[in-house]
Amino acid sequence: MRLLSLLGVAATCAAAATPLALRAADDDSSPIFGVRIPSGYRQWELIAPSHETGKFNELRAILGNPIAIKAYQDATLPFPDGTILAKLAWKREPSTEFPGAFVPGAPTTVQIMVKDSRKYASTGGWGFGRFIDGKAVDRAQHETCFACHQAHVVNHDYVFTRFAP
Amino acid sequence: MRLLSLLGVAATCAAAATPLALRAADDDSSPIFGVRIPSGYRQWELIAPSHETGKFNELRAILGNPIAIKAYQDATLPFPDGTILAKLAWKREPSTEFPGAFVPGAPTTVQIMVKDSRKYASTGGWGFGRFIDGKAVDRAQHETCFACHQAHVVNHDYVFTRFAP
Repeated sequence: MRLLSLLGVAATCAAAATPLALRAADDDSSPIFGVRIPSGYRQWELIAPSHETGKFNELRAILGNPIAIKAYQDATLPFPDGTILAKLAWKREPSTEFPGAFVPGAPTTVQIMVKDSRKYASTGGWGFGRFIDGKAVDRAQHETCFACHQAHVVNHDYVFTRFAP
Repeated sequence: MRLLSLLGVAATCAAAATPLALRAADDDSSPIFGVRIPSGYRQWELIAPSHETGKFNELRAILGNPIAIKAYQDATLPFPDGTILAKLAWKREPSTEFPGAFVPGAPTTVQIMVKDSRKYASTGGWGFGRFIDGKAVDRAQHETCFACHQAHVVNHDYVFTRFAP
């Protein structure tokens, strides 16, 4: 018991001594935007699945919080503040049980878009976050988000996904 | 007004005279199993997306009612009575906005599996329904459901889809 207590104290001290910049907590929010993975996102309603070919080779599902789903139902554009979209991606693997079918393999990224028209005024009102294993990827990757959305879907408030009925 | 009234009466009489076997109401439930499309299924949580190649060329999403989702979370097998799974399918179309991405096109089928171990004892406890435009397809198509599930996924209670985290 005494040894365990000592080990516990040592572990606590080591954590306290870690420089702030190296702490895992920093990775919970995205660079530039400060977007976090919203709690309960996996329970949100489905907007649509998609399939990304090429080097990604991923199956994806885009889910939306209740504000997002209502905006899709009412065809509200631009999306209202508070809208959050979550894109879940998995490697696309052949089914071992049904020839010709492909199913989700290992999860790859979770990508979040948050609408806050004032906070993110310089990026179309959207904040972006790209996460691997729950940790945000680097700043360079986040610098490309809005430019791509702006280049491709300016007429749908910078959102690629349409609702699949 | 008088002409419209007469036309209305004529239409009503024509509907009343249609033989029961040809009435659309018959198509709301599947042959053999009597499975209907459950209300609110589009709001259910996502279990996983999938991609069917070949002649189907479809993107799919499998949703589950709360009993189904809990069973997946708890790894409960066989699935408990009351489990309902809904497979939504759309034609897989290239995105016109993002090269290399494929997105849902026209919806094709909605397929439902209902667990009732007594009612459907002869088919592994599952009732099946396959619907196009909200109407059940013919008996012949429903005769193939269980044989295929039985041949491929006997070790997962005849359910192909695994939960995509």
